[in-house]
Amino acid sequence: MATSKVANGNGLSETKGKTITCKAAVAHGPGEPFVVEQILVHPPEKMEVRIKILYTSICHTDLSGWKGECEPQRAYPRIFGHEASGVVESIGQGVSDIKEKDIVVLIFNGECGECTYCKCEKTNMCEKFGVDPMKRLMCDGTSRFSTIDGRPIFHFLNTSTFTEYTVVDSGCVVKVNPQDNLSLKHLTMLSCGVSTGIGAAWNTANVHAGSSVAVFGLGAVGLAVAEGARARGVSKIIGVDINPDKFITDLINPTDEEKPVYEGWGLTVLLGIHSSPKLLPIHPMELFDGRRIEGSVFGGFKGKSQLPNLATECMQGEIKLEKFITHELPFEEINKAFDLLIDGKSLRCLLHL
Amino acid sequence: MATSKVANGNGLSETKGKTITCKAAVAHGPGEPFVVEQILVHPPEKMEVRIKILYTSICHTDLSGWKGECEPQRAYPRIFGHEASGVVESIGQGVSDIKEKDIVVLIFNGECGECTYCKCEKTNMCEKFGVDPMKRLMCDGTSRFSTIDGRPIFHFLNTSTFTEYTVVDSGCVVKVNPQDNLSLKHLTMLSCGVSTGIGAAWNTANVHAGSSVAVFGLGAVGLAVAEGARARGVSKIIGVDINPDKFITDLINPTDEEKPVYEGWGLTVLLGIHSSPKLLPIHPMELFDGRRIEGSVFGGFKGKSQLPNLATECMQGEIKLEKFITHELPFEEINKAFDLLIDGKSLRCLLHL
Repeated sequence: MATSKVANGNGLSETKGKTITCKAAVAHGPGEPFVVEQILVHPPEKMEVRIKILYTSICHTDLSGWKGECEPQRAYPRIFGHEASGVVESIGQGVSDIKEKDIVVLIFNGECGECTYCKCEKTNMCEKFGVDPMKRLMCDGTSRFSTIDGRPIFHFLNTSTFTEYTVVDSGCVVKVNPQDNLSLKHLTMLSCGVSTGIGAAWNTANVHAGSSVAVFGLGAVGLAVAEGARARGVSKIIGVDINPDKFITDLINPTDEEKPVYEGWGLTVLLGIHSSPKLLPIHPMELFDGRRIEGSVFGGFKGKSQLPNLATECMQGEIKLEKFITHELPFEEINKAFDLLIDGKSLRCLLHL
Repeated sequence: MATSKVANGNGLSETKGKTITCKAAVAHGPGEPFVVEQILVHPPEKMEVRIKILYTSICHTDLSGWKGECEPQRAYPRIFGHEASGVVESIGQGVSDIKEKDIVVLIFNGECGECTYCKCEKTNMCEKFGVDPMKRLMCDGTSRFSTIDGRPIFHFLNTSTFTEYTVVDSGCVVKVNPQDNLSLKHLTMLSCGVSTGIGAAWNTANVHAGSSVAVFGLGAVGLAVAEGARARGVSKIIGVDINPDKFITDLINPTDEEKPVYEGWGLTVLLGIHSSPKLLPIHPMELFDGRRIEGSVFGGFKGKSQLPNLATECMQGEIKLEKFITHELPFEEINKAFDLLIDGKSLRCLLHL
């Protein structure tokens, strides 16, 4: 069990309220190899949580962020990473739903629970902690990370998980109850990509047994869409990818229909970050007969409210998380893990901290 | 009451099974003035209904169709018109839900009730009678109209209502129960434009008391969106139109918010025919944070199933239909009615047959 692993070895109470010196993979410039170096992690402020990261994986948005594609004004040094699980080291003033030693999954699209949007069932875009690629500091305008010589290091996507310790808003932390360490590894997948895909199928598209689902792009997110569709009993799932290696999965049933699948009404869900300046070539009449296009963030899940239930469903085997972890490496080999993603060889490479 | 008006004067049983000679406003070429002339209307075939039109109005799609904008291959002579009410003169073999003398509203987006789409709650696009601007003949590939000298006249949008008598599929006919003749005039508005607008607000956008609604284009459809939003208790309804005359309505509350209304997540619903070749200049990231674009046909209503209930709600005063009828003219003045629409002077001009 992950808790004991941490509690035994790290003496949580000893670090509370103090600045922690630990290792992080710091990006010093766009596309430059990560440098695993010692950094300072300051204590959590009001409504913040400091977490010892146990596992982090790499999502394509980390790749985009690292290359500097997400923002016109790039910010370095920076700690990327937003898919992770860990154990709470300490909590800041006012945090009541999370406590020390809790096992948590981090979420880049938080839920304050208090704003108009959190109270509205039509969106999962929290006004306070909704995903914002431009955000690079905590809500008070400062960083919780600094270099050994005291220069601030920027945050990323409400999370920054390529580090042994991170500080995040409590609205971006979801308590989970993994049965064991293997289970925790799997639940790490819910931090971003797999939840995004499953939620796109369940919440955004609301697929059902009679639906036909076509997935364009068979990375972890695309395969999670397919897995979500499979779990809902969808009979026809069509995968489309330019990488021929992707076609080895049994999720792909190339259609033998006479009509192309894009005929008829339906919903197109757009997922993820698109840094290309290309516009979508849509004519209004293409939407005329009941077609829809919808952007979906984090699969429409309200993270704090809905992820614990999703985690339970995963542990019960309704969703198979294990197949998304194609590689595991020590944290220090993060640059190798990035290469695996760039080369299309991994779905998720789990880094062990 | 409309029934008696028709039954007294026309001797329904005398025409049953026979070809009827009557007046129609025939379009002989794109944009050419309508010629009100004698035509032949053949008896309804299997699962078809012949209707004596009592009222027809003009929708912008009739204008687009008349100009030949809807189809690459134009078809003339043709009878346009798709917003109408009338009384059933006779029914074809197999029609069981409609009978002679029924008062009906015609719908261009029909509902067979049997196909996969009709049985699916996610769409109102019937596979058999869903709106199709390219369709110009009945399902058997022939026309029920001909000129006095026997040349076929093409149908339009499953309906063709600029005629004293028309033949339509029974799936494109909705029985209503108007309280009186005035009530029937109002219900004619449900045939297309007003249902489209109300349904866009209710079914497609599913607005509620806390919603903000912006309507771009304040023709009958746009004002029906606003009316649907008003009936749902929406507090903020913002109208946008380049025609300054449109701003006289009390539906318009120009915003005094600091933030422009297009910020934040939300749904854009596209309504109606867009014949311009212009594409929508959308970048995928504009949809990223939960924005949606959706085409809506007939406001998402399944016509035969849901229009009777909408008609009841209108007669109970929940929706004010009377304000959409800004002009009334004899059928023979159809060209004048088109001018009123082209000049932006009318919402709906009701033609009396």
